[in-house]
Amino acid sequence: MLRRLFLHHARRRLHSSAAGASVPLSTPTFAIFGANTGVGKTLVSAGLAAALLDSHSPSISAVSYLKPLQTGYPADSDARFVFAKTPALLRASSSYPRATRLVASCRTLFPSPAVGAEAEPLHQSQEKVVAYGGDGAAEETKVLACRTVYAWREPVSPHLAAEREGMAAGDDDVRECVEQWLLEEGVGEGGEVWKVLETAGGVASPGASGRLQCDLYRPFRLPAILVGDGRLGGISSTLSAYETLLLRGYDVSAVILEDRDLSNDKFLLSHLRNRVHVLALPQIPEDPLDDLTDWFAESSSVFIFLKDALQSFHSRRIERLNSMQRKSKDILWWPFTQHNLVPQDSVTVIDSRCGENFSAYKVRHSSSTLNLFSSKENCSEALIELARDMGYAAARYGHVMFPENVHEPALHSAEVLLEGVGKGWASRVYYSDNGSTAIEIALKMAFRKFSLDHGILADSEEFTKRERNIQLKVLALKGSYHGDTLGAMEAQAPSAYTSFLQQPWYSGRGLFLDPPTVYMKSEMYNLSLPQSMPHDPHTSGGFSSQAEVFCKSRDKSSAADLYLSYIKQQLSEFSLSSNSEHLAALIIEPVIQGAGGMLMIDPLFQRILVSECKSRKIPVIFDEVFTGFWRLGVESASELLRCLPDIACYAKLMTGGIVPLAATLATEEVFKSFKSDSKLTALLHGHSYTAHAMGCTAALKAIQWYQDPSANLNLDTNHMKLKELWDGALVKQLSSLPNVKRVVSIGTLCAIELKAEGSDAGYASLYASSLVQQLRKEDDIYVRPLGNVIYLMCGPCTPQDSCSRQLLKVHRRLCDLNRTH
Amino acid sequence: MLRRLFLHHARRRLHSSAAGASVPLSTPTFAIFGANTGVGKTLVSAGLAAALLDSHSPSISAVSYLKPLQTGYPADSDARFVFAKTPALLRASSSYPRATRLVASCRTLFPSPAVGAEAEPLHQSQEKVVAYGGDGAAEETKVLACRTVYAWREPVSPHLAAEREGMAAGDDDVRECVEQWLLEEGVGEGGEVWKVLETAGGVASPGASGRLQCDLYRPFRLPAILVGDGRLGGISSTLSAYETLLLRGYDVSAVILEDRDLSNDKFLLSHLRNRVHVLALPQIPEDPLDDLTDWFAESSSVFIFLKDALQSFHSRRIERLNSMQRKSKDILWWPFTQHNLVPQDSVTVIDSRCGENFSAYKVRHSSSTLNLFSSKENCSEALIELARDMGYAAARYGHVMFPENVHEPALHSAEVLLEGVGKGWASRVYYSDNGSTAIEIALKMAFRKFSLDHGILADSEEFTKRERNIQLKVLALKGSYHGDTLGAMEAQAPSAYTSFLQQPWYSGRGLFLDPPTVYMKSEMYNLSLPQSMPHDPHTSGGFSSQAEVFCKSRDKSSAADLYLSYIKQQLSEFSLSSNSEHLAALIIEPVIQGAGGMLMIDPLFQRILVSECKSRKIPVIFDEVFTGFWRLGVESASELLRCLPDIACYAKLMTGGIVPLAATLATEEVFKSFKSDSKLTALLHGHSYTAHAMGCTAALKAIQWYQDPSANLNLDTNHMKLKELWDGALVKQLSSLPNVKRVVSIGTLCAIELKAEGSDAGYASLYASSLVQQLRKEDDIYVRPLGNVIYLMCGPCTPQDSCSRQLLKVHRRLCDLNRTH
Repeated sequence: MLRRLFLHHARRRLHSSAAGASVPLSTPTFAIFGANTGVGKTLVSAGLAAALLDSHSPSISAVSYLKPLQTGYPADSDARFVFAKTPALLRASSSYPRATRLVASCRTLFPSPAVGAEAEPLHQSQEKVVAYGGDGAAEETKVLACRTVYAWREPVSPHLAAEREGMAAGDDDVRECVEQWLLEEGVGEGGEVWKVLETAGGVASPGASGRLQCDLYRPFRLPAILVGDGRLGGISSTLSAYETLLLRGYDVSAVILEDRDLSNDKFLLSHLRNRVHVLALPQIPEDPLDDLTDWFAESSSVFIFLKDALQSFHSRRIERLNSMQRKSKDILWWPFTQHNLVPQDSVTVIDSRCGENFSAYKVRHSSSTLNLFSSKENCSEALIELARDMGYAAARYGHVMFPENVHEPALHSAEVLLEGVGKGWASRVYYSDNGSTAIEIALKMAFRKFSLDHGILADSEEFTKRERNIQLKVLALKGSYHGDTLGAMEAQAPSAYTSFLQQPWYSGRGLFLDPPTVYMKSEMYNLSLPQSMPHDPHTSGGFSSQAEVFCKSRDKSSAADLYLSYIKQQLSEFSLSSNSEHLAALIIEPVIQGAGGMLMIDPLFQRILVSECKSRKIPVIFDEVFTGFWRLGVESASELLRCLPDIACYAKLMTGGIVPLAATLATEEVFKSFKSDSKLTALLHGHSYTAHAMGCTAALKAIQWYQDPSANLNLDTNHMKLKELWDGALVKQLSSLPNVKRVVSIGTLCAIELKAEGSDAGYASLYASSLVQQLRKEDDIYVRPLGNVIYLMCGPCTPQDSCSRQLLKVHRRLCDLNRTH
Repeated sequence: MLRRLFLHHARRRLHSSAAGASVPLSTPTFAIFGANTGVGKTLVSAGLAAALLDSHSPSISAVSYLKPLQTGYPADSDARFVFAKTPALLRASSSYPRATRLVASCRTLFPSPAVGAEAEPLHQSQEKVVAYGGDGAAEETKVLACRTVYAWREPVSPHLAAEREGMAAGDDDVRECVEQWLLEEGVGEGGEVWKVLETAGGVASPGASGRLQCDLYRPFRLPAILVGDGRLGGISSTLSAYETLLLRGYDVSAVILEDRDLSNDKFLLSHLRNRVHVLALPQIPEDPLDDLTDWFAESSSVFIFLKDALQSFHSRRIERLNSMQRKSKDILWWPFTQHNLVPQDSVTVIDSRCGENFSAYKVRHSSSTLNLFSSKENCSEALIELARDMGYAAARYGHVMFPENVHEPALHSAEVLLEGVGKGWASRVYYSDNGSTAIEIALKMAFRKFSLDHGILADSEEFTKRERNIQLKVLALKGSYHGDTLGAMEAQAPSAYTSFLQQPWYSGRGLFLDPPTVYMKSEMYNLSLPQSMPHDPHTSGGFSSQAEVFCKSRDKSSAADLYLSYIKQQLSEFSLSSNSEHLAALIIEPVIQGAGGMLMIDPLFQRILVSECKSRKIPVIFDEVFTGFWRLGVESASELLRCLPDIACYAKLMTGGIVPLAATLATEEVFKSFKSDSKLTALLHGHSYTAHAMGCTAALKAIQWYQDPSANLNLDTNHMKLKELWDGALVKQLSSLPNVKRVVSIGTLCAIELKAEGSDAGYASLYASSLVQQLRKEDDIYVRPLGNVIYLMCGPCTPQDSCSRQLLKVHRRLCDLNRTH
């Protein structure tokens, strides 16, 4: 009952801030982890608390100690130990100059039923008042608040105790309590408050739910104090524990361990040089009757040193965070960003990421309080494994040149690509670094294949003479976008991106067709034909569902006839216009044109286009950089188009967001057009890090993760597609708002075009900016506008409820915007 | 004495193979690591040995056990325990069907002096013969060979024992013994031999030198068996130890641990699901007098399961390695590679990297033996830290969009870039993915700056009319190479890379000057002027040293006058030829043109060119993708040129070889030319992974590593340059060989052009191939030819002796080649 109330209270507090939890950075907060169990974490807690309260830092007015998970209770209670020992230490020492009153309290929130009633007084709140320092009447009051959240009776790991005693403590519950504790203000009386969280067991000991503690507390990423192991073998367990913390993205502020005449501390200090402080404590008496008074007296200088080290760690961290907005404005040059339009305080300083959320430093509203967003989201197991795999790949391979070499990640990820997105057509994988380079390679492949198929390269001597007259061009769609390097840009129609101002070398080497598009407005799926296409009353009109749009039976519709004749006409006009120009490749973004404005192209049109090119032996390139890997709800968008390319490009989602890598897949026929006995006919395009082991390892992990129903709960395994991630009803509501022009919702993408006229339209528009700013500042949704289009995009494994939450917030903002306009 | 002899023997064996150590993969070999000390590693060794010898696998004829480092000797001797216990277990069990004779031996090679003479018999070789299995006369003989290498008396960590007892065991010594043990054949009598190496203490316990054991044995990367910890806290220490092994690139084949009723094994099994076997052993009796017979009897099924798991792990590994050459030929498409010219067996299968060496799977000569190259080289501390940092960055950040955001690695690496290679001129960092993209961005920057400075974009309406007529071109040098994307290619002179066959869209948008080059031949530094330049007898001729080439006093030489008038003439000819064409950027690779053939350009010429362009307000781009970060012995090649650019591009060495990342640095003046109140004037070029946290973290680490004298022993801190890495005398000898046309040796680069005429010349040449093949197959030097140029290239921190060894091998091969031609 108490627990429910407490959690309810915690939840209410959280929800009162629309932005989620903002933790004041001004409070130094540390988490104490152990290299093993029984290494003295609680002694460090007590010693540190005493050093903080009894020191020459009169600014510190309170220490708040939290033990989220306690087992062996009430016989063992680390909070009670700190509560009992710290005041005793303060009284025993006389170093504090002013007469002070310490108000110490101790409380256990949720004892397990097995703890029994007889222990009741122990977990009721206890309080005592102690005087220390100086002489005479107390000049000031300090506070020591010790709290245990969950307590079980059996002295075993919390996950066992929770099971055996029938009191669970879910990750969200534990995190909410920690979050509440972090948010708590007014513990002291105006002075500085320090907070110390003590974990249970070793760094990777399971919490009550079975989640490792280093993972359980990860969303807060509190700076860690690692209590090392001074025993034989302790160097190893301390270093391993340190690495486990690093592999979760923790910063370790100090390592402190008992000195048992094995010089473990000296070894660790020299091994971890420059990275972290290593402090040695005197040997801990083994006699359980020893009250440790002498030991603490002997240790006090170490704890004062620890306190100073933590203080300077904290100041450096805050100072750095405070300066990052200014510094980044001074020295960074962001892509696609007009620096004049980015005020310093709107730069987002990202401290870390966890799941779909960022922990970001911000200065909130006009107040100068500093806030750290924490998140309740889990870092998924897969992401933790990915981090481990990154360390492994770096350690195993380092740099490996690729030509004529092979290593496991490169080969294995190639196999997985061919069995997945390349299934049924591709037989070769060509690696490069990003979408742009993958496209440039694809074009080179297509041009060679076309040239051989059409006799352009049949006779090399003959060719040399004709060379200057032959011009290869691409067939592409208006509004498509294939990347920022010149070769990729040449394959797209003129736009703001391609102006002389941006790329003086751009000429646009293609025939660019105007495609028909599909979108939702006012709950209806509409087809929009380009003006250049004759408007047939049978063809225009709408669809009752998205499934209908993709239905194969449309191949026999009047739209199919219209499209085919339009395409044939365009192609023949082109070939009549010039003898020397050839359309040597078709390049399309299947189904969705991304950077061009999140447009859904009528799949029927693209299917007919592909078929027409194949019949003319024009190689077909699918630019799946954006659409690949479940972006549209299926692994490859070719499943939606129901036709296959000769060449396809992949990047972005391929590596799960961690490192750049791209792959251009090709059929064996394309590959063969580069084979001969001369090195000169080989495909001469490569980058230093081609097929780098880190990227291939990440790709392997990510691709398998997306496909694994036990890791990806969004997967509908019967149909091998993603479940609907964006609430259908809400999408329809959105599409009916008067300030919404159209909505495209498919797979992991939900794009909304806002209505705008005149100068608001186009890429330069700032119309969507206020919306985007609000979402970012008030709702912690980090979207970027594409002209008047704003879009939500999640990962293939993002939980459905996270998508819904985001869409709801967008809907709310759009309704507001509607009212104010 | 014994030790010297032994090591001498080991060394001789190694050197008898020119290729270094080749370890037969057919022998299953495993390393036993512990999650902590005292977790029962030796019990696992003995139990496994018994399961291997007493099983239904009659093919196994021998087990060879090695304990490289033993402390607490002779009271403790793990080898002796295995030697004593295994035969007893075999005799006690009756599961082996055939009557067998076991020849068991035990030997300690190097007891410390403190062990004392009284223990002498213990470390003399002991042997005993035991009969087991079946009835009657022995049908076969099996062998158990147990060996301790180094043994100290004190029961402490080897690094302390070694120090206290005055018997060191250097890493190389220990590794040589392990290597010899791995190479040992004929332990059994024709059947299968298994080898088991048992480490001391926990995974990260120090060896005798203080190097952690996981690092000490890393060059062999033996598949690991991790003996976990079944005690309270053991989940944490086992998982941390597992992660420590992964962070060194080990594969863990099985985790095995004592079951102490805490279900640690069940938790670990579920946590590590699909990744590794987890086996539970019955609780180990704590009574030291227990002879463990019952425990082993109870455990035998677990050990048989372990044996089977290891066997299948081994088979899968071998099978995979055996198939990788074929599979990679089938599905990979290597850049810059004519697949027809790569026979399957010349594909190098890289199992792992350590320091400068690869561990590579190969089929040697005509024999079908499989070999695994191991290496004596250390993986440097910095690289281990880099792997750790990669795991940390992945865990902390995951994917972060960059525009308008900032995170610590992006900001910090930008700071380090501006304080280093950008010092004195650059104020902005623009990140991208590789050298090519960095160049395309640099060109966009330069063109905008030029257009604004020269009034081309002054009036946008006016401009629109003139747009089509204005053509911006680059001023560049013949033979320079700036990358493979179209924009980068357009900035280079025509070559085999730019033919219609390779890139039909290439037109070569530049004025390409023929530069003077400098090289060494017959011990002399020569200057070679291009034919297009008037040959002045005062100018040609040589230099006595490389320092003279770079001397600033040459600014007043007759060569300077010659260069200046040549440049002025070329520029004025260009401007006379067309009104609409502008040279809007100078782009050069400072000092060394890399991919174009490792040519050293006369720095005086480049300096004058830069100065002339600056005076004409033509923005100057340094393409430092190849030359940057100590490639030429100094951090930036601009230090050698003694002049500064407006824009410079960095990649390759910037991230220490681990992940792709590039940076384009620019002056504030260049940056300002993109500022306005319109988003349309921003630099619209970006990639999804721009400024990815992994790359920036790697860059930060690598750049700091190169500059840190304690980590980079090549650094001459007085002059902030690298010491000479290529032995000067040897370089001179090379330059005098009749089949050598020229040598360029500077910083980390030593390039040798072979003499070749006619069809041998140029990029298509296969002339250098036989040399390259020999170096690869016989000398384990992985060089790639550039036409007739072969080049050695090391990292900024590669030890000098490693460079010398490689250069010696090349010299030897060239001398041989000389004799046979």
